[in-house]
Amino acid sequence: MAHAVDTAFTYRPPLRDLRFVLDEVLGVPDLLQQCGSTEFDAQTIDQVLCAAGQFAAEVIAPLNASGDREGCRLPQPGVVATPKGFRSAYLEFVEGGWTGLGCDAEFGGQDVPSCVSSAVSEMLSGANMAWAAYPGMSHAAYMCVAANGTPAQKALYLPRFVSGQWAGTMCLTESHSGTDLGLLRTRAAERPDGTYEITGTKIFISGGEQDLTENIVHLVLARLKGAPPGVKGISLFIVPKFLPDARGEAGTRNALACASIEDKMGIHGNATCTMNFDGATGWLLGEADKGLAAMFVMMNHARVAVGVNAIGLMDAAYQKALAYAKERTQGRVLGRIGPHAVGGADPIIAHADVRRMLLTQKAYVEGSRAFALWATTLIDMQHRHADAEERVRAGRLLALVTPVVKAFCSDLAIESTLLSMQCFGGHGYIRGNGVEQHLRDARIIPLYEGTNGVQAMDLLNRKVLGDGGKSIDVLLNLIQDWIEAEEATPDIAEFLVPMLGLVKDVREITTELVAVAGSSADIAGAASAPYLRLIGHLMLAWMWLRMAALAGRKGEAAEAIHMSKLATARFYYQRLLPEAKARCLELRAGAASIGEPILDWF
Amino acid sequence: MAHAVDTAFTYRPPLRDLRFVLDEVLGVPDLLQQCGSTEFDAQTIDQVLCAAGQFAAEVIAPLNASGDREGCRLPQPGVVATPKGFRSAYLEFVEGGWTGLGCDAEFGGQDVPSCVSSAVSEMLSGANMAWAAYPGMSHAAYMCVAANGTPAQKALYLPRFVSGQWAGTMCLTESHSGTDLGLLRTRAAERPDGTYEITGTKIFISGGEQDLTENIVHLVLARLKGAPPGVKGISLFIVPKFLPDARGEAGTRNALACASIEDKMGIHGNATCTMNFDGATGWLLGEADKGLAAMFVMMNHARVAVGVNAIGLMDAAYQKALAYAKERTQGRVLGRIGPHAVGGADPIIAHADVRRMLLTQKAYVEGSRAFALWATTLIDMQHRHADAEERVRAGRLLALVTPVVKAFCSDLAIESTLLSMQCFGGHGYIRGNGVEQHLRDARIIPLYEGTNGVQAMDLLNRKVLGDGGKSIDVLLNLIQDWIEAEEATPDIAEFLVPMLGLVKDVREITTELVAVAGSSADIAGAASAPYLRLIGHLMLAWMWLRMAALAGRKGEAAEAIHMSKLATARFYYQRLLPEAKARCLELRAGAASIGEPILDWF
Repeated sequence: MAHAVDTAFTYRPPLRDLRFVLDEVLGVPDLLQQCGSTEFDAQTIDQVLCAAGQFAAEVIAPLNASGDREGCRLPQPGVVATPKGFRSAYLEFVEGGWTGLGCDAEFGGQDVPSCVSSAVSEMLSGANMAWAAYPGMSHAAYMCVAANGTPAQKALYLPRFVSGQWAGTMCLTESHSGTDLGLLRTRAAERPDGTYEITGTKIFISGGEQDLTENIVHLVLARLKGAPPGVKGISLFIVPKFLPDARGEAGTRNALACASIEDKMGIHGNATCTMNFDGATGWLLGEADKGLAAMFVMMNHARVAVGVNAIGLMDAAYQKALAYAKERTQGRVLGRIGPHAVGGADPIIAHADVRRMLLTQKAYVEGSRAFALWATTLIDMQHRHADAEERVRAGRLLALVTPVVKAFCSDLAIESTLLSMQCFGGHGYIRGNGVEQHLRDARIIPLYEGTNGVQAMDLLNRKVLGDGGKSIDVLLNLIQDWIEAEEATPDIAEFLVPMLGLVKDVREITTELVAVAGSSADIAGAASAPYLRLIGHLMLAWMWLRMAALAGRKGEAAEAIHMSKLATARFYYQRLLPEAKARCLELRAGAASIGEPILDWF
Repeated sequence: MAHAVDTAFTYRPPLRDLRFVLDEVLGVPDLLQQCGSTEFDAQTIDQVLCAAGQFAAEVIAPLNASGDREGCRLPQPGVVATPKGFRSAYLEFVEGGWTGLGCDAEFGGQDVPSCVSSAVSEMLSGANMAWAAYPGMSHAAYMCVAANGTPAQKALYLPRFVSGQWAGTMCLTESHSGTDLGLLRTRAAERPDGTYEITGTKIFISGGEQDLTENIVHLVLARLKGAPPGVKGISLFIVPKFLPDARGEAGTRNALACASIEDKMGIHGNATCTMNFDGATGWLLGEADKGLAAMFVMMNHARVAVGVNAIGLMDAAYQKALAYAKERTQGRVLGRIGPHAVGGADPIIAHADVRRMLLTQKAYVEGSRAFALWATTLIDMQHRHADAEERVRAGRLLALVTPVVKAFCSDLAIESTLLSMQCFGGHGYIRGNGVEQHLRDARIIPLYEGTNGVQAMDLLNRKVLGDGGKSIDVLLNLIQDWIEAEEATPDIAEFLVPMLGLVKDVREITTELVAVAGSSADIAGAASAPYLRLIGHLMLAWMWLRMAALAGRKGEAAEAIHMSKLATARFYYQRLLPEAKARCLELRAGAASIGEPILDWF
């Protein structure tokens, strides 16, 4: 690197902001009390966050650039070597008990609430996304087995996922079958002993092979002989790399192997594998032909999780941009940073356009952090709240916002990391300065776990139109009740009017879509992307209002963080939220301009 | 590559669309008549475009992915090896006379008008941006010497640039001095023989060293002893790698060398060099202390040129996305692509959200192509139009829109290539499919030749506020006259109202900015980026209106391309142009939210 900047390898865990969001904005300690997690008071949460932040900053952040540069290799057929240092960092992670963080105590886990483990996950991916995806994916497999396994399956696999000895993968995609899983061809044939023989090729399998764990347990979607065509004939199987022996240890090698790894734009340190299953032995997980539903329990959690990852990445990029903008001097700005010697220059953070870029990143990072963590409190409430009605309501809201967390946060991550690079000028294009890697790493998130287009269809078709707008009404009423309760709070009048206007716009547009969507397949399809974006802004606007209200309520006692939140809320409302108006106009234009062009016109 | 798609290495020169824009939309053959270029009729232009398209598609497009993979190397200190095939492609380019395309006949050039050579340049960068930047940068150096050189300097250097034997570079940036060239430290000391001794280090020098040409002529900004501080003490020097001997051949090696090359996000095949000048011999180009102005003649042309490059890149990515969307089958869409067998699926272009993404790319690619080529006709008019008033007016409009071509087109290129990748789903993240390279390559354009933030300040501060809004009035009046002349054209009523509204918004916002900008340095700085974006949409909206009007005027005789333009115009107006409304709101919010936050709040 000819021109590396010393911000390249640092990652500062956003502990203060995580605390602010969890304790002050979301009132998590109280909420967890209502969920029966009495041991998670503010202090305990803080201890977890501090320890995780230290691991992120000191153990895996230093491996981020080197992992990108080195990438994964296939030193011999079927064997994957992760980058230097990844394995020892993983062993340290296991040693610290982190692989069991969000797992049930019954299987040796630490039973940490989702909102806390998600905050940890944000820091891990901010520090090193490629590394963090190994335990991240494995946790998804844990959740899938926990939700669908027989008692024996749970007893066998879950403690080994918890201990980190074994890892898990999700094997869905085939080369001709991604979004449309109904097309998949991998076959499963039942054997007399009750096991299944799995045959087929899966692609894009994150961590399909690695050198971190003793065993890798693949959760594979396949078709049983005679199963109905399409998505109704898909079953889910547990297919371990090494078959568990009588004592539950990794035994005989199964008939599966990693055929190749992908050369990708980013997350080079994470092995994306093509997996061949050549009559491999597997066990049915959940019911026959109900594999997709079984997989989706975990898929939904994974969608929230990757949205959280996106926040970690854009924060890491923002941290670099901010450090650079304070350090780099270029040009003079009269009036802001004070007089300089002749020939001197001001730090570029003094320039209004650089401030615009930094404030945009800040508004997106901190706004989406509050939004995503709010969504993860819904996971905790759904599973643990004392009040059954609250559990149902939380589940409903969670289902609604899951695609928004995934797609909106990952789209913002792309926009925000682009701006982080832009703050560096030409130096942002140089690999040694570290910021361009965040964009390359982040770019996978809008594509995987269901493309953002799929998320938008899930939101509008299934979650909004699917129940005639009832769930979104629950959300809008929640926001409206909140606004009414805050009307007397000082200093937030400027936000209440646009927020109420936005709620009204969303209500009207939703009503219009519910009324017309049935008349053509294109209507929902053409509306889905701007609709998701609109709901994303609804959530961010609400979060920024909540953060501003906290500052307002503090009055004279407001600390710097509160003043900062109020100022950022103002920036968000004045400069970023106007996009929602454009989306409303786009939505009201309807589907005709999308539906009409014939194929030859493209 | 485990999963390469066969669209990876193809580039289809957009000959039909270039013809449409040049002949039908801009009326270039007639315009060139008025500029005295009588030999460039539609047929001649077409011959140039066809030959260039063939070179782009057959010679350099096949080197695009391999060049990215291999990159440039420094096999020994000071020596750069370009990727395999780059040199022979360059020699073929030279052989074809392409290096002299836009150069004066006086120096052996082909005197091809700017609008035609820009269309050629779009195809070259679409096919292989890293390769095309070598002759592209060299042409910028040609223009700088042509504008500022003595007759002897022109006679020595220009024919060698034209023939492609020698290349040129622009050496502006130093590690601490990029946007703020006033900080630069490279020194020039006059010698008794009238030459200068140049000492200093320049970074980010595109093609600073390469293995394509016999000689490399560096145009270096440096400070003469005793020169005033800041930008008023900068001079420009010609500093060749090999000193020309008495016969004008490359002679003695000069005291300069490439110290290193950058490892970058993209354009790997283009060597970005750190250049050390160790008392190198140079000659003053233009007047002492007036180097910045001398350099800027060329810089402005370079800004239009890189905007055009951005269009080539986004078109290449769009071509891949479109081919993939027609080929890839996934999911069923009732009603659009006809019945399929059970288990079958429709090409994804049948899905409304994929169509939305494709139409967005199409609207951006074709709209910005028309805009940028219109801007290049201003170059021709400025230099060659028979009417002196037209020359002045063209120059004024060109100065105004130059930063918009550079920044808006390159920002759209990023947005568009992101969507191209998105159309591929997870396959878009795989290097072998080629589409992600376009994003990495395009990402340099918003950063170099003045960051897009610098362009926005140039537009608003210098070009708009600098003359109290007079130049933008010329543009707005031109558009308004055009609208009035077209009021009777069939089928375009739906565009005229929003277009007039947009003109009105721009007028009002400009008037407001002119009135208040003097009261604080932040006002223009905070407004510059959204203002540039607004003017970008003004230009695209006008271009799409012009293209739609052509279709309207054709009536029954409209061909598929006209129908396609009308449909795309409709899509642009209904779904993309609403963004202009958001920018107006953002602009009217003013600078306070950007100016207020103190440093500690970031």
